[in-house]
Amino acid sequence: MASSLPTFPHVQQAAKILQDVVYQTPVLRSSFLDDRCGGTVFLKCENFQRTGAFKFRGAYHALACKESSAPFHQVVTVSSGNHAQGLALASQLLGYSAHIIMPEPVNSFKRTRVEEWGATVTVAPTRQAGQELAQELVWRQRGLFIHPFNDADVIAGQGTATWELLQTEPALDVVLAPVGGGGLLSGACLAAHGVNPTIKVYGCEPARALDARLSLQQGLIVKPHLADTIAEGLRTSLGELTFGVLRDHVEEIFIVEEEEILAAMRVAFERLHLVLEPSSAVALAPLLRGESVLANKRVGVILSGGNISLSDFFSLTGKNY
Amino acid sequence: MASSLPTFPHVQQAAKILQDVVYQTPVLRSSFLDDRCGGTVFLKCENFQRTGAFKFRGAYHALACKESSAPFHQVVTVSSGNHAQGLALASQLLGYSAHIIMPEPVNSFKRTRVEEWGATVTVAPTRQAGQELAQELVWRQRGLFIHPFNDADVIAGQGTATWELLQTEPALDVVLAPVGGGGLLSGACLAAHGVNPTIKVYGCEPARALDARLSLQQGLIVKPHLADTIAEGLRTSLGELTFGVLRDHVEEIFIVEEEEILAAMRVAFERLHLVLEPSSAVALAPLLRGESVLANKRVGVILSGGNISLSDFFSLTGKNY
Repeated sequence: MASSLPTFPHVQQAAKILQDVVYQTPVLRSSFLDDRCGGTVFLKCENFQRTGAFKFRGAYHALACKESSAPFHQVVTVSSGNHAQGLALASQLLGYSAHIIMPEPVNSFKRTRVEEWGATVTVAPTRQAGQELAQELVWRQRGLFIHPFNDADVIAGQGTATWELLQTEPALDVVLAPVGGGGLLSGACLAAHGVNPTIKVYGCEPARALDARLSLQQGLIVKPHLADTIAEGLRTSLGELTFGVLRDHVEEIFIVEEEEILAAMRVAFERLHLVLEPSSAVALAPLLRGESVLANKRVGVILSGGNISLSDFFSLTGKNY
Repeated sequence: MASSLPTFPHVQQAAKILQDVVYQTPVLRSSFLDDRCGGTVFLKCENFQRTGAFKFRGAYHALACKESSAPFHQVVTVSSGNHAQGLALASQLLGYSAHIIMPEPVNSFKRTRVEEWGATVTVAPTRQAGQELAQELVWRQRGLFIHPFNDADVIAGQGTATWELLQTEPALDVVLAPVGGGGLLSGACLAAHGVNPTIKVYGCEPARALDARLSLQQGLIVKPHLADTIAEGLRTSLGELTFGVLRDHVEEIFIVEEEEILAAMRVAFERLHLVLEPSSAVALAPLLRGESVLANKRVGVILSGGNISLSDFFSLTGKNY
């Protein structure tokens, strides 16, 4: 049921469905990060997931769960980011055509990848126009809409990243994940607390898309004021389902400045030899500034994705050279 | 014995010594690379090894083997590259002081890392001057010299990268590794043919440091003519030990142009989300151009390292923008 909150058994079931479909992404160590944060760090590298981001997990799982529920003509979503790529590949693998509506501004690097996975792309001038077009496709052409995060099956799928991390490193004290719409972080909460309720789960959010922390503080879903962060994937606000999960599970939300995101991208490049997109680097920033709650802890970090062109990476990180 | 050729049992013994010291680096998959080369590709990511390169394996193993042989005052080598970093960390871990002589031109990024691992660095105007200084340190100050590649213990240590890869993926048909001095490739030969003599081992060499292929063709060690490739780590010629191993084991040496190295670095960044230094990217190039012998094969590739500064990466790969 899409309207009821997902639970730990959903995540376990998703892990079974996904086990031969997703890459079991590596968990990397770094003595440099250990030194910087004063704890022991385990990096779950979803930038090495198929399509370059964790989003493939939720997209595939949701499509696999819903494909038998009603006949449909095509798979539909509104996304200009990693969900678009994840859903395009999931549709290809499961034998459906996908129609991805990308609201402007469209990143040509991500659009090209979506088309490579065989999806049809339509660009919409605004997100609102994109939603209306999607609704039309769903109603008039029997489309199956898969939401990027506000969907119990999607959340359960994203939770498998943390679940896998805990299979490799069961004795974690802390899990960190970025938060935008909250799909990844909600899944992390369910997986972590299903395995061990004492694990503390922290979200990591750009100061320039500050809504998840406010939402949890105020007890209702708040829209971000600015949402002009370079971490494109984290500009959205929470959905009802992700808010419902996070409210019960999240310890705190760390706020990250733009300059810290860039610094984390540079550190990932030079010290870890990892390419991270800004939304992913957000989760490294609390380690780099030595957040006191991480000291002497075993810290798992979900590195969400690596989809950024070389030229975008250069123009962003080169600003301070 | 440093003067006799290393063998497969040396590699197995090295794997035991190193198992709790090195990172068990991940083996990554990429459907993009599979498509490009027409085979099934397994990337052994030594860019995630401690100090960012496979060189730590050989350095630590050699030092661990030799530390009991005679009393010495300090560990000495001549290297401005990854061996310097590997040996600096190995010395620190085993409780010795290290004196690293770096011939000009010295890359400040690599020098800084070597010093972070606690080593003393002396810059020498030429490689010849560096060798003389090293000899002085060995004879007058009881230094223990660890050669970057022409040492049986070093070669055995480097072989553990391929040995680990074959533990994860035993059914490989082909192994690819870059070749400079030949330590990594010699180790790959011993490990691969120790596990399965039918595996074909290929070296990958820059056209602008063309000596390994010529050496094997002519049956004697040839010095490279140019050696001005951007793949700094591959500018050296073979040593007697590495030549001795390669002669008996290597199927062929693939020659790689400079533009192909840059293209491979870009592909690694944008498609694999991996940071590779030029010497490491050399081993991807034969896959990207679809070398016919790789078609329908299970291909293991040793990605040797990721030590390159962001600014060097930009200035190299940005040339064609």
